[in-house]
Amino acid sequence: MSSLSRFSIHTITNRPWPVERCLKAYAAAGIGGVTLWRYNFEGRNPAEVGRWIKDSGLVCTGLARGGFFPAPDAAGRQVAVDETWRAIDEAAACGAPVLVLVCGALPGQDLPESRLQTVDGIAACVDHARAAGVRLAVEPLHPIYAGDRSAVVTLGQANDLCDALGSPPEVGIAVDAYHTWWDAALETEITRAGRGGRLFSWHVCDWRVPTEDLLNDRGLMGEGCIPLRRIAGWMGAAGFSGFSEVEIFSSRRWAMDQDEYLAAITAACRRHCLPL
Amino acid sequence: MSSLSRFSIHTITNRPWPVERCLKAYAAAGIGGVTLWRYNFEGRNPAEVGRWIKDSGLVCTGLARGGFFPAPDAAGRQVAVDETWRAIDEAAACGAPVLVLVCGALPGQDLPESRLQTVDGIAACVDHARAAGVRLAVEPLHPIYAGDRSAVVTLGQANDLCDALGSPPEVGIAVDAYHTWWDAALETEITRAGRGGRLFSWHVCDWRVPTEDLLNDRGLMGEGCIPLRRIAGWMGAAGFSGFSEVEIFSSRRWAMDQDEYLAAITAACRRHCLPL
Repeated sequence: MSSLSRFSIHTITNRPWPVERCLKAYAAAGIGGVTLWRYNFEGRNPAEVGRWIKDSGLVCTGLARGGFFPAPDAAGRQVAVDETWRAIDEAAACGAPVLVLVCGALPGQDLPESRLQTVDGIAACVDHARAAGVRLAVEPLHPIYAGDRSAVVTLGQANDLCDALGSPPEVGIAVDAYHTWWDAALETEITRAGRGGRLFSWHVCDWRVPTEDLLNDRGLMGEGCIPLRRIAGWMGAAGFSGFSEVEIFSSRRWAMDQDEYLAAITAACRRHCLPL
Repeated sequence: MSSLSRFSIHTITNRPWPVERCLKAYAAAGIGGVTLWRYNFEGRNPAEVGRWIKDSGLVCTGLARGGFFPAPDAAGRQVAVDETWRAIDEAAACGAPVLVLVCGALPGQDLPESRLQTVDGIAACVDHARAAGVRLAVEPLHPIYAGDRSAVVTLGQANDLCDALGSPPEVGIAVDAYHTWWDAALETEITRAGRGGRLFSWHVCDWRVPTEDLLNDRGLMGEGCIPLRRIAGWMGAAGFSGFSEVEIFSSRRWAMDQDEYLAAITAACRRHCLPL
């Protein structure tokens, strides 16, 4: 078992590559898993992609993403639920055990109202997820995205959301270092999530100083200021034993030769994320 | 008394203008106050700028900014304290009742350690501030700045910091809508700050969706998603009766004709911030 066997990579990290190329390259590099993004299914069949993953020897660690539940009216909110059901179906078809949910936010709508609409939206997906054998991972986003992407901006709020749903076993949390590292309550809330059996996913990258773009300037592990090993230690102490998923949105990196970049990623995994 | 008499503008909002021009234009527009930035003193004497403010009929509502206390070693931290003493002296000289403190952060240093160094740094400034008749306003910044500008990223942490200092009456808080609007604990922590007599300043602008630059794309009030009237209501209910200070960093706006921009600012104050 290589030291990278418990790492997974989100295909969007190597966005210039089609999914087939990602699978081959990750497997060849000794990476253990892959998290798909829904754009990977354009022109492809999710079940077929799932077979390619099995053939490659990789573990499918998840699918990104559903959610975006808040909307101005009931019809709009139903569209989001329908779309998330489709994402659940795709996750089941490709063998992804977890669907990542970005909760959504509506510019001009109060954040508490958006969080209530998110609870309702997830509630409308739980039975479908259970029937499909797919778990739902709420991903709290950085407060930088509170305006239009997620009213859930802390791990505490994600835990509250799970509580509000009655803690169904199908609903848990994706902890992303980029979104949560600044939060003084992080260790406490990781412990709380672990107690509830909610630690479904762990995403790693780094926070560059300075960050030059709000969306696509995430850093490779070691390139920024996030204490990754410490947070990973909290995850482990709270009972998480899953994959470390590399998820990096970076215009700079997407412009690179992707084979060279993958070599840098595996080096960064070994240097800045191990031992867990 | 014009309806704008309880508004103040930070000179950096009209960065292309020298301070003399700001004072004339704000007074002519019926704005009641001005908050200076230290760059306003380049080639000028703070006491002289203070006289210009008095002559203009404006109230000086503050000076930005001191702080940036964390540093790798004691010598570096002393440099920050010395610089903040100088800023206190300048505030006293120009008649600013409050010096705004941006607390600082050090890439790679743990945020709790940076917060401890911030407590020590402020502690080393309290006597000097008291003697000068200047109050110190800790400004919690948005978590987007946790990497390199402020380890204090919530109003709760600013309150904790005041507690850790023993709640001296010279130390309070500047609540900035841009930095704090996303925080579910905001109302609670405003109430807590009000109880402690800590609500020194209230800064307004807006959060644009999408925000295109991490530093200089703040919105004019009404241009974004911050519930300004609601937060102002919380400030008032907590006992704050000071000025609403317009503080907008915006490359787009700095490129405009500044007289036209000032007209847009006063219109936005009337439309989106009144009545308090």
